Parts: sequence; C-alpha cells; structure tokens
Amino acid sequence: MKKGTLALLIHGGTENWSLERWERRFHDVCGDRPLRLATEKGGDPADVRYAAVWKPVPGELASFPNLKVIFNLGAGVDALMADKTLPKVPLVRVSVGDLTGRMTEYVVLHVLMHHRQELYLRQSQREKRWAPRHQWAAGALTVGVMGLGTLGADAAEVLVRLGFQVVGWSNSPKTIKGVECFHGKTQLDAFLRRTDILVSLLPLTPDTHGILNRELFSKLNRSSPLGAPVLINAGRGGLQNEADILSCLDDGTLGAVSLDVYQVEPQPADSPFWTHPKVVLTPHNAADTDADEISKYVARQIDRFEGGQALENLVDPDRGY
Amino acid sequence: MKKGTLALLIHGGTENWSLERWERRFHDVCGDRPLRLATEKGGDPADVRYAAVWKPVPGELASFPNLKVIFNLGAGVDALMADKTLPKVPLVRVSVGDLTGRMTEYVVLHVLMHHRQELYLRQSQREKRWAPRHQWAAGALTVGVMGLGTLGADAAEVLVRLGFQVVGWSNSPKTIKGVECFHGKTQLDAFLRRTDILVSLLPLTPDTHGILNRELFSKLNRSSPLGAPVLINAGRGGLQNEADILSCLDDGTLGAVSLDVYQVEPQPADSPFWTHPKVVLTPHNAADTDADEISKYVARQIDRFEGGQALENLVDPDRGY
Ligand SMILES: NC(=O)c1ccc[n+]([C@@H]2O[C@H](COP(=O)([O-])OP(=O)(O)OC[C@H]3O[C@@H](n4cnc5c(N)ncnc54)[C@H](OP(=O)(O)O)[C@@H]3O)[C@@H](O)[C@H]2O)c1
Ligand SMILES: NC(=O)c1ccc[n+]([C@@H]2O[C@H](COP(=O)([O-])OP(=O)(O)OC[C@H]3O[C@@H](n4cnc5c(N)ncnc54)[C@H](OP(=O)(O)O)[C@@H]3O)[C@@H](O)[C@H]2O)c1
Repeated sequence: MKKGTLALLIHGGTENWSLERWERRFHDVCGDRPLRLATEKGGDPADVRYAAVWKPVPGELASFPNLKVIFNLGAGVDALMADKTLPKVPLVRVSVGDLTGRMTEYVVLHVLMHHRQELYLRQSQREKRWAPRHQWAAGALTVGVMGLGTLGADAAEVLVRLGFQVVGWSNSPKTIKGVECFHGKTQLDAFLRRTDILVSLLPLTPDTHGILNRELFSKLNRSSPLGAPVLINAGRGGLQNEADILSCLDDGTLGAVSLDVYQVEPQPADSPFWTHPKVVLTPHNAADTDADEISKYVARQIDRFEGGQALENLVDPDRGY
Repeated sequence: MKKGTLALLIHGGTENWSLERWERRFHDVCGDRPLRLATEKGGDPADVRYAAVWKPVPGELASFPNLKVIFNLGAGVDALMADKTLPKVPLVRVSVGDLTGRMTEYVVLHVLMHHRQELYLRQSQREKRWAPRHQWAAGALTVGVMGLGTLGADAAEVLVRLGFQVVGWSNSPKTIKGVECFHGKTQLDAFLRRTDILVSLLPLTPDTHGILNRELFSKLNRSSPLGAPVLINAGRGGLQNEADILSCLDDGTLGAVSLDVYQVEPQPADSPFWTHPKVVLTPHNAADTDADEISKYVARQIDRFEGGQALENLVDPDRGY
C-alpha cells in the first residue's frame, strides 16, 4: 500500500529552519513515505495525509482535503490556533527531550544571572571596580514558575536541585517533588506573593494573553531579598504587556527582566529593550528546535497513528494548548 | 571544668568578614566557651585551645602554646600552609553545604554563560542586532572538572543533570555517576583532550601551582563545537599563569575565560582582565562563607573533638590540602 504523503510547510527564517535541512532529516527517518515541500508546485493535494508545519501561511493547510494529522514543529501552537481555516484534525505539538533540555538551560542560566547579580558585576567590570556585594545563597530566594507543563516541570526540578525555593502555577493541580504547586485563578495571588524571580513558561491562549502586566507584577514579593522581583519570559511575547514592563522597571516594581520573546519579532531597532540597563534581551533562541530529534519524533507519531495507537501531546483546541 | 578558649583570628575585609558578625555568631553557638578576638589585648595565651582563622597574620597562631586544633574558615588552606611557623596541630577546613551550593551556582552559571553564547548575545544587544546564532544543546559539549573534591563533585552532578558530557580529574581514582573520571598526572592529557569547558576547582599546592598554563590549554579539545575551549577558574589565582591566559585568548588557544581568583586580589586598576572582551571577571565571590553555617560547623567539630570523636575534613600537611 502506498504510504500517505507528508507535507513539510516550514516558513521560518533562521539557520536552524532551512527547509533543505528539515527535508534531509525527514527523508532519513520517513523511509519510503513521499514528502512534499511547501515550495513545490504540482502533485495532487488529495495525496497529503500528514503535515509537519512551522508558521504555515494561513489557509495553506486547508488546501489538503484528506489531511489526517497536523504536527507543529515547535512547542507553542498559538500561531496555528489563530488560523480560522485550520482543518479540524488532530494537532500534535512537539515534546522532545532535546527542546526541554535547552529550555531548562535557558531558565537556569537566567535565574542564576539575576540571583548572582550579573548585571551589577558586569557593570563593575566595565568600571574596573572590585566591589563584591552581599550574595544570598539560592535558598534565600523563591523562584515562581508559571506553567508546569513539559518545560516548566523540568526547569523547576533543576532549580530545586540548585537549592532555590520553588513554587509553581498551572491550570490543573500538580505534584512535583520539592515544588509548592498552586493552580487556577484563585491561587494565582498566593503564588505571586511568594515569588522573587518569576519564570513564565505559559502557552499563549485567550486566557493567558497579556497576563504579565503591572497588576500581576505588583503582587510579587514586595520584600524580596533581591530588592525588587525579576521577570523571565520565555513563553510568548503575547503574554506580556511591554509598556507595563518598562514602566515597572523604571518605578522599581520590577528589578530586572530577561526576555526571549516579544510582541514584535525580530525586535525593531527603536525598541527600548535593546538599551535598557535592566533588560537582558535574547533573540527568541531559548530553545531551538533540533531537526534530528523532531523529525524522528514526527515519524514515530505517524507510525503510532497508522498502527492504531493514540497520538501523544495532542493540543486541545478548546483550551488552545 | 572550664572550657578551652576559642580564638577568632579573622583578617578579612569585605562585608561578609566583619569581625563583629563572626563574633556574634560564635557567641550564639559556643555556649559558655570563652571567645577571644584577634583585636583583644590581654588574657593568657595559654588558655587558647582552638583557633578559628581567616588569613591570620603569619606567626599569630604560634603564640598559643596549648593550641589543639586550627579551624580554617574557608575551603582553601593555601595561605595557612605558607606560614612556616604554623603549629603542628590538626588543621580542619570548612566543608558545609552552604558553601558547596554557592560554588555550584557559580560553576553552573559560568558554564551556561559560555555554552549559551552570553558574551556574543550581550554584544549583539549593545549593537541592537537580532542575530541568533546556531546553539548547541548541552550534550554536544564536554565540561572537564579539575578537582573532584567537595566542590567539584557537586558541580559535576548538576552539570550531568543539565545534559552536559562531564569528565573529571583528581589525585586519586573516583566514581561519580555520569562522570568519566581520570586521575593523576598520567591521565591528565586524556582528560584535557576531551574538554571543551575546563572548570578548575583545585586547591593551591606545590603540585598545582601554575598548572593552568599555555601547555595545558593547548591540550584541550582543539575541535571544540565552541570554536575554542573555555577556562573557568574558581580555585585559586596561584593555579593560573596570567600572561599565558592573555596570550592564549589573543591567539585563539582559548575562546573565553571566567576568572574569580587572581594572583593579585583585589585586581589593580591596570589589570588587562578588566577590559578584555573575552574575560568575565568576578571579584572572588564565587562562594561566600556564611557565618551562620560555618560557626555551627566549627562548634560541632569542637564538640566531636572533646567527645573523643575524629575531626572531619582534616588537611593533610604533606599534600597541602
Ligand atoms: N522561547 C522559546 O524558544 C520557546 C520554545 C518552546 C516553547 N516555548 C513556549 O513555552 C510554552 C510552554 O511549553 P510546554 O511544552 O511546557 O507546554 P505544556 O506542556 O502545554 O504546558 C503548559 C503549562 O501551562 C499551564 N497553563 C496553560 N494555560 C494556563 C492558564 N490559563 N492558567 C494557568 N496555567 C496554565 C498548563 O497547565 P496544565 O498542566 O494544568 O494544563 C501547563 O502546565 C509553549 O506554549 C511555547 O509558547 C517557547
Ligand atoms: N573562589 C572561591 O570563592 C572559593 C571558595 C571555596 C573554595 N575555593 C577553592 O576551591 C578549592 C577546592 O575546594 P574543595 O572543598 O572541593 O577541596 P577538596 O575537597 O580538598 O578537593 C580538592 C580536589 O582536588 C584534587 N587535587 C588536589 N591536588 C591535586 C593534584 N595535584 N592533581 C589532581 N587532583 C588534585 C583532589 O583529589 P583527591 O580527591 O584525589 O584528593 C580533590 O578531588 C579550595 O582549595 C579553594 O582553593 C574557592
């Protein structure tokens, strides 16, 4: 029996998203399954059973009448969810150890940078000042992780190992060793009150849009050993109110921020984030997707599906993640 | 029976080493044991049984004829070992979870900074350039930990959890889960050949003096995914040849360094390390000593000693650590 075609609809940009690279990887892992690239003309759209996508053009997926499953090649599906023409077929998101590990690297790095006064120490180095300041041990600080999914739970585990107090917040109740877990809107304030360093690993949904705003920041631990609480957002730019972040940095509601995601990406040259002394800016590279790992993951999911097993990491269209 | 006097001989400088702070802590934990401060005149030197010291003046300890034990209030005893008049009594060094945890924070932070291209990303931010570069996952890099004692072993464990390949080097053979362990002079080259990021947590002894030099750097992994290998030295300044570090940074034998310790501390204003673009300088604050934890540790050791139990973490004067 001829295998169903897998369409690769990849519209990225950076080096890691070169279509050739992904095509090569999928060829390696897909055996005799026909592949079709977004850039190819011709071929019968009716042959396409599966689509592996990154930022597909809105409407592109609707052109395949026999589509069975969509694989999103990243963890966040907010861009897809915004496409009103998205076919009503199962949508699988990526959850692979490689991506999780990279995000944990990012979170641990940025938590430690703020905890260990890196902004101050680099400034001292530039000024040639040998001026160590009092340094708390990790146990004096509480890191609050918003979003205890694949990414948040793993980062929390390493932060616990490093000796931080860790609290977490999610939609549904969780049990994670060493982490005091809060959930739902009613427990949000109690979670925030404890938090000195807030790490956002939430998906962008109608419920979380703009959640990182002045009202929320003002509920963080007001007597933080750090002086003022810190925000690290590696979820999505749509979670954050950027005018609020800037005004909260300037009036001391926030002490510093690390941002990997923005409402506009790439950030324009006139963005105030580039030059703000309390902003650590990274260019949405917290957790790069690795074509090797992810092509294997998709091939394995297709095998499961064709073998009658359940797909893993299905997105719930009602929740939006 | 009157308890033997504990002398506090603390000659520090920074905030953390204020004599009053230490005296208060030792009063809290020592019960009715008499304390004597370095700054106090009078009193019979013959009453002093124990000394808790940080950078004592050479000769100071020799003035107590009935001294039974010396407690060094930090992990490194190289400064004490250099005192030819040091009384030949047991010397105990600090090994407490608080200090170990702080050093692990430091090592993990600096390994991640180099791994995650922080020098490049901060430069990009200053230049307002959104230019993510290819980012390896931790598993593509090998961190080599020199010194697998209290500090090195703990840092190695967290680096393994973060997904790095980890190799280690010590005097005697070790078994540490997930770490490929090398030991002794004959296995040094094999250890270095594997290493992309070299972390030095060695004590300063006649054997290790100046070990971090051009010859050693040139044996590190010459085909490192980082481009060129990286050095992180949080052991002692005497381990490093500073002229070699600078020339190796300039000719590409080393890609970058993080230094917490120096031959001269504080670093003078004309030190080239302040302004070198590939140097991350910290002012010997990798692992501050916490008076709370360490005063308790010393009190517990004295109790052990007076109860006839063996002292822990004894320094071997022949090895020098
Ligand atoms: N910057 C980057 O490079 C990068 C890379 C990858 C991913 N990301 C972002 O990271 C996000 C998280 O990824 P993941 O794999 O960890 O997702 P996930 O496994 O779906 O986890 C999402 C977590 O957020 C919680 N959550 C969702 N909506 C909530 C709400 N309204 N209130 C409270 N908690 C809520 C969920 O709670 P329940 O567990 O109770 O459902 C879950 O714990 C992605 O959506 C993506 O936007 C960024
Ligand atoms: N920068 C800071 O703020 C700071 C703070 C605290 C400590 N330190 C430094 O960190 C050092 C290490 O502390 P620690 O508590 O981990 O000491 P430790 O427990 O005595 O461990 C020392 C390690 O180095 C190894 N070693 C010693 N000489 C060696 C040689 N010639 N060749 C190969 N390996 C050798 C030892 O091997 P064996 O296990 O086989 O004996 C041991 O694994 C201290 O001595 C101090 O200088 C710095």
